[in-house]
Amino acid sequence: MCELLAMSANVPTDICFSFSGLMQRGGNTGPHKDGWGITFYEGKGCRSFKDPLPSAQSPIAQLVTDYPIRSEAVICHIRQANSGEVCLENTHPFTRQLWGKNWTYAHNGQLANFTEKLMIKAHIPVGTTDSEHAFCYLLDCLFYQFGSEEPDSKKLFTFIAEQVIKIDELGVFNIIISDGQYVFAFCSNKLHWLTRRAPFGLANLIDAEMEVDFHQETTENDVVSIIATQPLTDDEQWQKMEPQQWQLFRLGELVK
Amino acid sequence: MCELLAMSANVPTDICFSFSGLMQRGGNTGPHKDGWGITFYEGKGCRSFKDPLPSAQSPIAQLVTDYPIRSEAVICHIRQANSGEVCLENTHPFTRQLWGKNWTYAHNGQLANFTEKLMIKAHIPVGTTDSEHAFCYLLDCLFYQFGSEEPDSKKLFTFIAEQVIKIDELGVFNIIISDGQYVFAFCSNKLHWLTRRAPFGLANLIDAEMEVDFHQETTENDVVSIIATQPLTDDEQWQKMEPQQWQLFRLGELVK
Repeated sequence: MCELLAMSANVPTDICFSFSGLMQRGGNTGPHKDGWGITFYEGKGCRSFKDPLPSAQSPIAQLVTDYPIRSEAVICHIRQANSGEVCLENTHPFTRQLWGKNWTYAHNGQLANFTEKLMIKAHIPVGTTDSEHAFCYLLDCLFYQFGSEEPDSKKLFTFIAEQVIKIDELGVFNIIISDGQYVFAFCSNKLHWLTRRAPFGLANLIDAEMEVDFHQETTENDVVSIIATQPLTDDEQWQKMEPQQWQLFRLGELVK
Repeated sequence: MCELLAMSANVPTDICFSFSGLMQRGGNTGPHKDGWGITFYEGKGCRSFKDPLPSAQSPIAQLVTDYPIRSEAVICHIRQANSGEVCLENTHPFTRQLWGKNWTYAHNGQLANFTEKLMIKAHIPVGTTDSEHAFCYLLDCLFYQFGSEEPDSKKLFTFIAEQVIKIDELGVFNIIISDGQYVFAFCSNKLHWLTRRAPFGLANLIDAEMEVDFHQETTENDVVSIIATQPLTDDEQWQKMEPQQWQLFRLGELVK
């Protein structure tokens, strides 16, 4: 299995604190040592940092921890391989373009018979994971359903949720998808979230000796939501998502 | 204008030496301060490091200089903006997927009337540069010419060259394209290259006080070709490409 982490914020915000906790699970406090990746959106653009090495020992992960990249949407993944070998092309998140937008996706879980059940035509995977295959299938569904015209966000994410619920029948399919503006989260069996807003307080990481006082780091108007496989802090109220529940975040707020 | 750098090698090789020279031109020895990016292929996978900040001051560029990522194909670009604002979505190289491969591209030059002359349908740009528009146009040409079947490499790159020569009529179009296996270079008006092989010797960077003895760094069988806008060393024999000339490299060797 793997671990997912995502952020949605109303002002460009760095994710250094949450990432510091998560990266310890990649070979230190957790067994997810088969690579990691993180994608930051800055406007319509995005950049990813990826490494097939364990995050706890990766100099690139150290850079991401130390260098505060401020973003309104972030997706991060640390991998414990179960489908597809450990190599760069199998390292999440995956990013592809549709409708002049960068779409980024990461998956926790595994799918059975995915090559037979999820037929793809226009979007061909580069690697060999069930995860990338399912992402390509989703993009194919969007492309053939809506053609060159992007639908409004309500229609779009309702359609995505319908496809995701079908894919979930093949196994375990906890996923995060973003187009840089929206962050979509689907819970197959394990996903938690919380929203931080004023009055901000202290938070203490479970996986590293690190505490942050968000009151010092934020302004009164900041709203930041974090979605993660497991809670990352032990003194905040994380919400557990229900199986087959999906949620949509935009600018830090839960909008569905 | 911008500067391009690419590498093709027969064994995974790091590009730290050449990159150390090029990054100095991003705000230090050269005026290309409007962002930079580098894409490394490792097998079918690739990873990019990008920053809209000048490379000479970028902590991410420093990481790329210090952390030897070994690759058989690399594309790098430092930008001096002339079309499209300075932001992440306008930062080269651009990577998109076709036929289950990652295609990476970077451009030096500028194109006139590109939105009218280069009609696109399936591949829509995320940013606002002439460069990304032309890349999307090229992918559209490939997609509508060959459908879901990738042609053999000779047919493929001959077709790419034909389209590139047409695009070049709109202005200046020095480009590098790679699928991770092949590195294609087209010279509109400025591009140089060399191949390093045994017996290896010393090389001295033009832009930084740095000398390398490739004899110490390589084995007898290594073959590495470097393509760059301007020569990066002052004691090696760089070949100047002719206008409208294209060349194809694979595993370090010039194959066309």
